[in-house]
Amino acid sequence: MKAARLHEYKKPLTVEEVPTPTPGPGQVLVKIAGSGFCHSDLHVIDKEIELPLPLPLTLGHENAGYVAAVGKGVTMVREGDAVVIFGGWGCEACGPCVSGHEQLCDSPQWAGLSKWNGGYAEDILVPKESYLVKLSRLDPRRAAPLADAALTPYRAVKKALPFLEPDYKALVIGLGGLGQYGVKFLKILSGCELIAVDISDEKLKIARNDGAEHTLNGRDPDLREKVMDLTNGKGVCAAFDFVGSDQTLAAAVSVTRSLGKVTQVGLGGGTANLKVLANSRFEVAFEATLWGTLKELREVTALAENETLSLEETEFAPLDRINEVCERLKRGGVAGRIVVTP
Amino acid sequence: MKAARLHEYKKPLTVEEVPTPTPGPGQVLVKIAGSGFCHSDLHVIDKEIELPLPLPLTLGHENAGYVAAVGKGVTMVREGDAVVIFGGWGCEACGPCVSGHEQLCDSPQWAGLSKWNGGYAEDILVPKESYLVKLSRLDPRRAAPLADAALTPYRAVKKALPFLEPDYKALVIGLGGLGQYGVKFLKILSGCELIAVDISDEKLKIARNDGAEHTLNGRDPDLREKVMDLTNGKGVCAAFDFVGSDQTLAAAVSVTRSLGKVTQVGLGGGTANLKVLANSRFEVAFEATLWGTLKELREVTALAENETLSLEETEFAPLDRINEVCERLKRGGVAGRIVVTP
Amino acid sequence: MKAARLHEYKKPLTVEEVPTPTPGPGQVLVKIAGSGFCHSDLHVIDKEIELPLPLPLTLGHENAGYVAAVGKGVTMVREGDAVVIFGGWGCEACGPCVSGHEQLCDSPQWAGLSKWNGGYAEDILVPKESYLVKLSRLDPRRAAPLADAALTPYRAVKKALPFLEPDYKALVIGLGGLGQYGVKFLKILSGCELIAVDISDEKLKIARNDGAEHTLNGRDPDLREKVMDLTNGKGVCAAFDFVGSDQTLAAAVSVTRSLGKVTQVGLGGGTANLKVLANSRFEVAFEATLWGTLKELREVTALAENETLSLEETEFAPLDRINEVCERLKRGGVAGRIVVTP
Amino acid sequence: MKAARLHEYKKPLTVEEVPTPTPGPGQVLVKIAGSGFCHSDLHVIDKEIELPLPLPLTLGHENAGYVAAVGKGVTMVREGDAVVIFGGWGCEACGPCVSGHEQLCDSPQWAGLSKWNGGYAEDILVPKESYLVKLSRLDPRRAAPLADAALTPYRAVKKALPFLEPDYKALVIGLGGLGQYGVKFLKILSGCELIAVDISDEKLKIARNDGAEHTLNGRDPDLREKVMDLTNGKGVCAAFDFVGSDQTLAAAVSVTRSLGKVTQVGLGGGTANLKVLANSRFEVAFEATLWGTLKELREVTALAENETLSLEETEFAPLDRINEVCERLKRGGVAGRIVVTP
Repeated sequence: MKAARLHEYKKPLTVEEVPTPTPGPGQVLVKIAGSGFCHSDLHVIDKEIELPLPLPLTLGHENAGYVAAVGKGVTMVREGDAVVIFGGWGCEACGPCVSGHEQLCDSPQWAGLSKWNGGYAEDILVPKESYLVKLSRLDPRRAAPLADAALTPYRAVKKALPFLEPDYKALVIGLGGLGQYGVKFLKILSGCELIAVDISDEKLKIARNDGAEHTLNGRDPDLREKVMDLTNGKGVCAAFDFVGSDQTLAAAVSVTRSLGKVTQVGLGGGTANLKVLANSRFEVAFEATLWGTLKELREVTALAENETLSLEETEFAPLDRINEVCERLKRGGVAGRIVVTP
Repeated sequence: MKAARLHEYKKPLTVEEVPTPTPGPGQVLVKIAGSGFCHSDLHVIDKEIELPLPLPLTLGHENAGYVAAVGKGVTMVREGDAVVIFGGWGCEACGPCVSGHEQLCDSPQWAGLSKWNGGYAEDILVPKESYLVKLSRLDPRRAAPLADAALTPYRAVKKALPFLEPDYKALVIGLGGLGQYGVKFLKILSGCELIAVDISDEKLKIARNDGAEHTLNGRDPDLREKVMDLTNGKGVCAAFDFVGSDQTLAAAVSVTRSLGKVTQVGLGGGTANLKVLANSRFEVAFEATLWGTLKELREVTALAENETLSLEETEFAPLDRINEVCERLKRGGVAGRIVVTP
Repeated sequence: MKAARLHEYKKPLTVEEVPTPTPGPGQVLVKIAGSGFCHSDLHVIDKEIELPLPLPLTLGHENAGYVAAVGKGVTMVREGDAVVIFGGWGCEACGPCVSGHEQLCDSPQWAGLSKWNGGYAEDILVPKESYLVKLSRLDPRRAAPLADAALTPYRAVKKALPFLEPDYKALVIGLGGLGQYGVKFLKILSGCELIAVDISDEKLKIARNDGAEHTLNGRDPDLREKVMDLTNGKGVCAAFDFVGSDQTLAAAVSVTRSLGKVTQVGLGGGTANLKVLANSRFEVAFEATLWGTLKELREVTALAENETLSLEETEFAPLDRINEVCERLKRGGVAGRIVVTP
Repeated sequence: MKAARLHEYKKPLTVEEVPTPTPGPGQVLVKIAGSGFCHSDLHVIDKEIELPLPLPLTLGHENAGYVAAVGKGVTMVREGDAVVIFGGWGCEACGPCVSGHEQLCDSPQWAGLSKWNGGYAEDILVPKESYLVKLSRLDPRRAAPLADAALTPYRAVKKALPFLEPDYKALVIGLGGLGQYGVKFLKILSGCELIAVDISDEKLKIARNDGAEHTLNGRDPDLREKVMDLTNGKGVCAAFDFVGSDQTLAAAVSVTRSLGKVTQVGLGGGTANLKVLANSRFEVAFEATLWGTLKELREVTALAENETLSLEETEFAPLDRINEVCERLKRGGVAGRIVVTP
């Protein structure tokens, strides 16, 4: 099969022929329909995040496709089933794993980010059948981003539910692929009015279409004051920072009420600074959430299957041109997810 | 002022002239715009629920209106303000009161159900200004049912949020006034598909309009099996029984999954029977919720003010004809709330 | 190896020679040091609980011992390791399993209660190494009851933690093996004063030694009034019924405050009846908890290893005499756990 | 009556004669038995925290004493009752107040830190009787520190309960007055082994006596490594920083596991910096808790009344010498709380 492999950090991926894996007992081979190109892979390619393992490696952790072959003992799926693939594989033995938080495993075995190859390929070997979430209505090519671009903001919103009180407003900073899903999940799971912030007027418009009641341009020098005005001086009950820079985190912290929560989503690279009586109120909870659980992927998939969640616009690119995708993402300006198709 | 007073149990109310109260320090006099006639008042009039206090008493705990006069020290409202009135007044000192659950007070001082007269009158005396939730856009005549008919299911749904997992379905039994709001709040606050049950096809239609994906007629002898089929044999993650009879409670318990919750809403009069390995799975939580908190009324009002929550159709009846309202409710068949107006 | 097997319901177990299993990939063979005889096995033998599988079957789900052999790929344990065995095995794929509640699996694969043989034998085959919790200090013969007799009340108490407010008292009914652990865990995990109830004065004495501040005899006709007096009329914040009869459940419900919780622990066989405004306050949560999770067994074991939890007195009986143990348990009057040793 | 009043920032307090207040309706006059001198008052006197109100002001928010006179309508206390006084008074109308978090009021009316005078005086006027928690056994002179020195760590521990898993250890940094109570509450409310850190060997010894299983000296250059070793590389499930400097906060963040929590307690003045993939794991919750609620003070008082909580050693100083107390606290080295007595 063809695979796009990372042979050396800071170098383009090599699209080459590799042996197609054979599923062992309990394992499943999935023919990739689409593999979303996630921004975090850029960090890996550029060695900003270094993986503790030898290269080459096939990246790609946001995958969906069709079951191609099943190993011995597999009973839940059969050849031809359309599936989206949970990628946050773990050791199944550490504290996070046995409490249902496998993506937070002490020794992560993530698809495409560990010894297990990912989905920038024609096929992917999945070590356990329960990692597969079956699709009934959705096209797996379009469903691939559920596995990360939708799952990650879903968990962020779900963990903030106890803070989302409808007599307060919530704030979303950064309306790229994940942030847009953030807005959608906040409308699905809470009754809070939303204040959406981005530096792109086009993205603010998308947010309004997705239900955000208020939008502000992130370049506005009076941003903080405007948020406080919109909340009658009370501050927001929950802020979600999908940018994750020092500046956006500082803004999120400064406008969040006591008993509220600031969530950092994704690998932005900024530092959150919290100092009570200075830049933060008391009892503001802060947390940087990570990806989502298998259970949460089932929930996200159910929401997409029954159209409670509408999928974002997706662009497709063939596997052979994956390095062009990579370059375009580095340059920025890509509106939504680009899904790589074999 | 005119007031409809209960002089003797099991007798009609007497509409008569009584002195208009004068607000003391911190108190507020509110001119009633509307007072929803709640089914629980029938239980009181018929002495099924006996109040520990001497008659006569003006009933009516679901009130909204305009501030008519304020006592000394009142600063948050002024004459003419449109307000909905929180009615679950408490002692402000017991455990429930000081933890924000005043409606569950050990010594309830509820409006219209304690020494404090209620809103079946031209005016009502409110003992504390913070019990008033200001309206900006809504007409208080139409907003009165927020104080109970909407607030009660809101709390029931909110307390069940941790159980509402979108890869499972939720069940609503009974689609009268409260049940309809239950459906609405489930759609606002969760992503679960809903199964709505009633014996009236008209009410099932309303539920579908409000977003319920599945409806079943409560007279269907295969009701339980159909719910299990709709959930692929898994059962629902949460069931809300707005009828509260032995039969509906038994149905709700029998179709709820392990780790799920059954909520009884309102004063139905039935008994919940739970026996594991017989009629119930393990780890099915059961709770009969009561009314809502002041904080929750603020949340409900915010949802209605910004049109996230649409108000149900309401019928109005003049105070002089309150005993006719009473009779009609006893006979059943009233679709939504009847609001009494002075 | 020798095993005590159930060949026919309502008949004694047969102690006989069976082939010793060989661990397959990922599996572990454990030499049994002790297997606690759990009351629920009596229900199985007497066919009060019927298992959906053909006999014969080796019962015994409360096991500890020493690793005897490991299958391919096992890395966390090695031959000779002392271990306590989690027994609530599941399918690893259903909702409860993937959220960390394997003991509540939709298709339970429990040790000694499914196709997997249990620990009334010389050896037991464990399907997954992560089911083993390593012991460092404890003797596995004495540690076996951690796997159920301690684990079950631990989960019951842990799920009630949000209700355990130290300005209220908690109630424990039934001070047999599980109830005694219930008292201990309530003292370890909460600051509530305890009211312990049993019909045996000896067991009340043990409860006092374990820290229960108040004890009442269950035969006392004024039991309910005395509990209300001890709580200044407020009721308890949490009640734990380890008996689970209609009577004890009714008592527990009737003395629990609003915003409190009643937990039924174990397979008592009674029915909980809850009717607000009659025998129950509003917002009393009811739940029958089941066993515990693997994560919780790790927590219980940690508490026992560092002597925060003291083990109860245990009696030992050889495997050959297991039917005598069975008879004695049926007759009642056994103080603590009887552990079967090969 | 005599009162120690702040007339000018950065100047000593003036002990002078002022009129004794008369309680209005619902108010209570309490004769002070003891008023704990809290470190935060030093920040006020030195103008590091500036109060939004004109001087003079009588400080002192950690008070207990005897009811001296009651205003009209007061029914819960009577003259002579021993009481500890909740000090986090609020507006009773904002979001935090009506949800039971009055100490987090949007417009705080704290005793001794607002227009309401505090307890460095012979008497204090309490605006609402429910702020009083009655004592039955405890001497109010010794009980005064319950109102802050014990209440503050109690809330910090209570809000961290869902994170305190007994198969992980918890960390306490800083074993002054509040930190010592922190250790005690962790032993009362959780089963976690504790790692206690301070730079004073004497305080480490006290922590061991209070039940801390492990102690480390904060000057140890290998502190972080030793914590990781003690936790087998897993990190702690919860860290409590009672010092609150940049350094201690950084240490707490760096050793906390994913799914764990770091709590900053008190007004240390440091900044918490959190950057995932750099100094912090993912899903580490951070929060700076503030004081406690009235309900929590009732719980703390109940724990002290029944001797579940032992009171720390307290030193007493007469009101006339309050400026000496102030100077000693500034110099540091005061072991526990100093209680000012009229």
